[in-house]
Amino acid sequence: MPAVGRTEIIATIGLITAGIIGYRGYTGEELQKLLARHPRVSAVLIDQAAKTQAASAAAESLTTKARQAARQAMSQAGRRSFPNPPVRLARDVLAGPPLDVVFLATPPEASVEWVPRFLRQGSRAIDLSSAFRIASPDTFARWYGTAHPCPEWLAEAVYGLTEVYRGRIATARLVANPGCYATAAALALRPLERHGLIDKASLVVCDAKTGVSGAGNKATQATHFCSVDENYSVYGTMNHRHVAEIVATTEIPEERFCFSTQLMPLRRGIMACLYFRLREGADAAGIEGAYLADYENDPFIALYPEGSFPSVASVSHTNFCCIGYSVTQPGNRAIVVAVIDNLVKGASGQAVQNMNAMFGFPETEGLP
Amino acid sequence: MPAVGRTEIIATIGLITAGIIGYRGYTGEELQKLLARHPRVSAVLIDQAAKTQAASAAAESLTTKARQAARQAMSQAGRRSFPNPPVRLARDVLAGPPLDVVFLATPPEASVEWVPRFLRQGSRAIDLSSAFRIASPDTFARWYGTAHPCPEWLAEAVYGLTEVYRGRIATARLVANPGCYATAAALALRPLERHGLIDKASLVVCDAKTGVSGAGNKATQATHFCSVDENYSVYGTMNHRHVAEIVATTEIPEERFCFSTQLMPLRRGIMACLYFRLREGADAAGIEGAYLADYENDPFIALYPEGSFPSVASVSHTNFCCIGYSVTQPGNRAIVVAVIDNLVKGASGQAVQNMNAMFGFPETEGLP
Amino acid sequence: MPAVGRTEIIATIGLITAGIIGYRGYTGEELQKLLARHPRVSAVLIDQAAKTQAASAAAESLTTKARQAARQAMSQAGRRSFPNPPVRLARDVLAGPPLDVVFLATPPEASVEWVPRFLRQGSRAIDLSSAFRIASPDTFARWYGTAHPCPEWLAEAVYGLTEVYRGRIATARLVANPGCYATAAALALRPLERHGLIDKASLVVCDAKTGVSGAGNKATQATHFCSVDENYSVYGTMNHRHVAEIVATTEIPEERFCFSTQLMPLRRGIMACLYFRLREGADAAGIEGAYLADYENDPFIALYPEGSFPSVASVSHTNFCCIGYSVTQPGNRAIVVAVIDNLVKGASGQAVQNMNAMFGFPETEGLP
Amino acid sequence: MPAVGRTEIIATIGLITAGIIGYRGYTGEELQKLLARHPRVSAVLIDQAAKTQAASAAAESLTTKARQAARQAMSQAGRRSFPNPPVRLARDVLAGPPLDVVFLATPPEASVEWVPRFLRQGSRAIDLSSAFRIASPDTFARWYGTAHPCPEWLAEAVYGLTEVYRGRIATARLVANPGCYATAAALALRPLERHGLIDKASLVVCDAKTGVSGAGNKATQATHFCSVDENYSVYGTMNHRHVAEIVATTEIPEERFCFSTQLMPLRRGIMACLYFRLREGADAAGIEGAYLADYENDPFIALYPEGSFPSVASVSHTNFCCIGYSVTQPGNRAIVVAVIDNLVKGASGQAVQNMNAMFGFPETEGLP
Repeated sequence: MPAVGRTEIIATIGLITAGIIGYRGYTGEELQKLLARHPRVSAVLIDQAAKTQAASAAAESLTTKARQAARQAMSQAGRRSFPNPPVRLARDVLAGPPLDVVFLATPPEASVEWVPRFLRQGSRAIDLSSAFRIASPDTFARWYGTAHPCPEWLAEAVYGLTEVYRGRIATARLVANPGCYATAAALALRPLERHGLIDKASLVVCDAKTGVSGAGNKATQATHFCSVDENYSVYGTMNHRHVAEIVATTEIPEERFCFSTQLMPLRRGIMACLYFRLREGADAAGIEGAYLADYENDPFIALYPEGSFPSVASVSHTNFCCIGYSVTQPGNRAIVVAVIDNLVKGASGQAVQNMNAMFGFPETEGLP
Repeated sequence: MPAVGRTEIIATIGLITAGIIGYRGYTGEELQKLLARHPRVSAVLIDQAAKTQAASAAAESLTTKARQAARQAMSQAGRRSFPNPPVRLARDVLAGPPLDVVFLATPPEASVEWVPRFLRQGSRAIDLSSAFRIASPDTFARWYGTAHPCPEWLAEAVYGLTEVYRGRIATARLVANPGCYATAAALALRPLERHGLIDKASLVVCDAKTGVSGAGNKATQATHFCSVDENYSVYGTMNHRHVAEIVATTEIPEERFCFSTQLMPLRRGIMACLYFRLREGADAAGIEGAYLADYENDPFIALYPEGSFPSVASVSHTNFCCIGYSVTQPGNRAIVVAVIDNLVKGASGQAVQNMNAMFGFPETEGLP
Repeated sequence: MPAVGRTEIIATIGLITAGIIGYRGYTGEELQKLLARHPRVSAVLIDQAAKTQAASAAAESLTTKARQAARQAMSQAGRRSFPNPPVRLARDVLAGPPLDVVFLATPPEASVEWVPRFLRQGSRAIDLSSAFRIASPDTFARWYGTAHPCPEWLAEAVYGLTEVYRGRIATARLVANPGCYATAAALALRPLERHGLIDKASLVVCDAKTGVSGAGNKATQATHFCSVDENYSVYGTMNHRHVAEIVATTEIPEERFCFSTQLMPLRRGIMACLYFRLREGADAAGIEGAYLADYENDPFIALYPEGSFPSVASVSHTNFCCIGYSVTQPGNRAIVVAVIDNLVKGASGQAVQNMNAMFGFPETEGLP
Repeated sequence: MPAVGRTEIIATIGLITAGIIGYRGYTGEELQKLLARHPRVSAVLIDQAAKTQAASAAAESLTTKARQAARQAMSQAGRRSFPNPPVRLARDVLAGPPLDVVFLATPPEASVEWVPRFLRQGSRAIDLSSAFRIASPDTFARWYGTAHPCPEWLAEAVYGLTEVYRGRIATARLVANPGCYATAAALALRPLERHGLIDKASLVVCDAKTGVSGAGNKATQATHFCSVDENYSVYGTMNHRHVAEIVATTEIPEERFCFSTQLMPLRRGIMACLYFRLREGADAAGIEGAYLADYENDPFIALYPEGSFPSVASVSHTNFCCIGYSVTQPGNRAIVVAVIDNLVKGASGQAVQNMNAMFGFPETEGLP
């Protein structure tokens, strides 16, 4: 795998080349910001739209025009005060020497088209879509209602929940970045299930809420300000596709898992509220122990003392996953609350964390 | 009980006198609005603060000054465009002929002081605080951590969940208006438990969220705009006092009931998301049947078709409780979502609905 | 004018028929709510889309299906708890006996098409679009950049600022409902200019802000929750078309009038902040006097005492225009602040107020 | 002035010591974040409350307890992921060797007490309160309604609008950090007045709006979520104390200046909308020229092309002041819009920018 040899060189020169395809959405923008501040990465934006020579020229001219506008405005500052990466057409990128890594902030339909191309060229890939998250083609077909278009690549994909799979991520050519809900829920539930703390007969409920950026930047009736403001709504339940990721990572049987997804009237953040019964004899100290055992050295997991819970704002603009818990008698009833920023730990931040793991950089490098 | 004879007269002349004590909070303001538009009620505000002759005069003078200011502003319109009820001192009200009904929008410490006085005078009372919601003094002591100060009145109080207890409410002298969370959760769960649809071994989870007006109008760090805006937080769990009301009304054992309360960044509304396993053989049609059986003629309950869920905004400023549900296989996992407006059905609206039941008015009279 | 004879009958039977064309937008929905509660109106929704027989049948079938869905949900309650008016195709409405009045909550392009048809049929019309607000075809052409498509109707249109033109509105066949900004600005400025209080050399600045419902219910990048939330932006300046209405109504010369429009992160409301120098000798008492002279008996105008200002929430969901003012020395600098609800006094409420004026009903009838 | 000699040493070793007194408010918290990331500063928090030995011990013990809580939570992450500076009692700091610079994020009453102490000890001071912003004791007395308690220090204070006064700031012992509104308004108006572009007879209107963090973190009815959400209000007018700063910096006569301050329902940000008439012959190109002349090399000023305006979100969490403008005929009417983040450029960011100027660091050092 050429990427490995490349990693060795990187360890010496400390600089890799990265591309972002699908850079106009919220996760793509967040990736630009993170990579612009990352000391070991030189980034380029990859424009997937233009495919012919003419379109290529047009794109270049548009880019030039945009630069002039930017100059004319002296800076335009604001949210884009970081240095803008250059824009290249995908066909040109694919024709040149391979980038070390390509981030795909594209819909799954586009990811299945572009991932194989970049992998064949010799780049490693981190896909932020849902295209490669389910290891088994059969399971994929059941949840997505269609056969996977390139199952030969599924086997190679490593699920990018960094805290859990960083060993395999380090040598992966293709990393499937987890869903935002799945990140919060699986990080909170996996240690408890793995250490045998959850009653095997208990329902495990995950009541999960997201900010509006989780719905993407497409303008729809659902994302209209007047639909969201002063409102709160349920938009997905047990059949939400993230359930497949959560049950695969936690090994909690699907038939015991309850899930719903809700839209909060705020911009960014995810909270997963988890409810279940502990097995007899388990207690709050056991919960703390399981988390410490699994995450003791993890820089982005923060555990709250029993009985206090993190709020969504406490992780805003960070790559942290904060977890709080409490246990109530009678009945050994437990509640666990996990929060992340959906655009950072739930998407682009974890993607950068995975890149750090893939290239042997410190895992916190370039992350807020 | 004199109130009953009074009710008969009322049926003829169609007008009763009502007082509001504790009229400055959000629920008190909402009550003023509702009663101002109620065609069969003449309302008065009762000022509990002033207790001496001097204070009484001062209060009167303040009231006069306030009226002048109002006139000077030609109307001041806005949120108070309804005719303002007159303000009377509690001591004067207690010295005169009894009001037909007194609403207490006071903290429980004040309610236990004022309720007995008005009842002894011959008025009926609707208490919006938590003071008289728990029938048993022992249960009260366990949840509130203190002995009830006037247990002799506990026995007389009827729990004011109108749809469930309207028969007893009709003849009650004292109605204990339910907690906002308890209203939503109990209306949604009770028919399902009563008709035997919930698996007796299953956890029953209630993940409940409120708008900020549910926290009252006291200015605290928790209600500061910068604490709430772009944030979402968990502030109560299984030990929340509304649990006592919910388990009493639904007869679901406490040790199977999981609960948490959360603060949404919006002004008004409550959503209760309920998760449980149905007993074997039960299904979605059974859920619909149970609700139809219990609420078929209830004007303020609306059932959504299976698989669609009400949002918080759909009941804003109304006395409705809207309920949606779905069932997923395998595992007979059910989710039920109930929404109410915390200031209307969750407080003042239900109080007026109870008054309508107490005085033989149509239950929807005066309610939006 | 047949409508006048009709009005006489109305005075006897107290019921008129009204249609709403363009009923799916925010103003159309608000109109439905208002008319549903209006005691003297029987309303029908007019579907402009379907024009052929087949489309007509399809529309009917859709309507039937929608009704079934509604029944199935027992009520669906919430924002639509008022009785839904029936839906008719425009072609059918135009073929039958004329409605007494038709409200057009349509874009101007549609209004110029439909207004003449309904007028020719014998209905009176209240157009909420900008199509007929400018009396002179030349002025229209200058502000709208195109010749008016049916200037023959412009002359007949009466500008529907009720407080100012109610005499002419009473007998009008076509009322052009004012723009939302123009309503707030003109109601606040006109008495001051008319009574000669504004310095003839002074700039008159109107810094005007709207809630997001003022931008309509079309989903665009500009109305996406993530564009508006935690943001505030200027989107129009001196060339905004409402300037034409304001200078026409107030007779303040355009070259002395400064204007900008801004988007507030909230759902509904307009605030116009007005700044100018008073003429020498004029003072705060003069301002109060001018307003009292012009609006003394106006039920929907509320004047605040000098130095206090109405907030946007104070008029939310009402038809009020509240006005506050103060004057500072040296320099006789005045600030006047006017607030309205953009969907009520700024659109549908004023339309109903105009209807009341047209049919001899009390002006406050059916208005909150 | 000892500070100067100190600056020379700093240029060599590149590290200064800084204290923050009043570190619990929003500006104090923002300062902590900025200084924690500043590569040339070692910061300490100064606790002003405890003054006796006993209180000192109590404070220490509280601090220890807080640290334990922090450890127990493994990190508590979130908004405080930066390394927490140590806390010292003011009496201990004053007894030790002087800090290079002390930031006062205190109310003016506290600033007049603490500034002289730290200056006498040999530290330089940057006061974020309004205590030392007005150079003349008479002017101070007129705007603040009271004599200045230590006028002997007023003369030494330099007004800290960095772009305008950086020369004097470099050698100042005491810098009075500007008010947030004054920063936005003065940066936008000063070049235009200075270059003679504003008509000398014209009113100059500043309609200024702030996010709620501008009102401080004290919980009041005005900052209660339910008072601000879905609302917008005017809270200050011509007599607002920032007017004194603006007219002093811009030299626009007060009697021609109109001002009001408004509360936006969002967390952070200021927008100043400025309206005036240009002098005859002046035009949009002149405006651009004036800004380029005055700010060409200023890293934190961004000018937008004519006709486009910055929004509040475009400067959120940055130290930028963005300015947009347009001119309309007839009448040479100009609108200028300036936006800043009230907690950064409007307070703590500008304070750090001033510190950079005082100690010869690059002006952008440590600023986002």
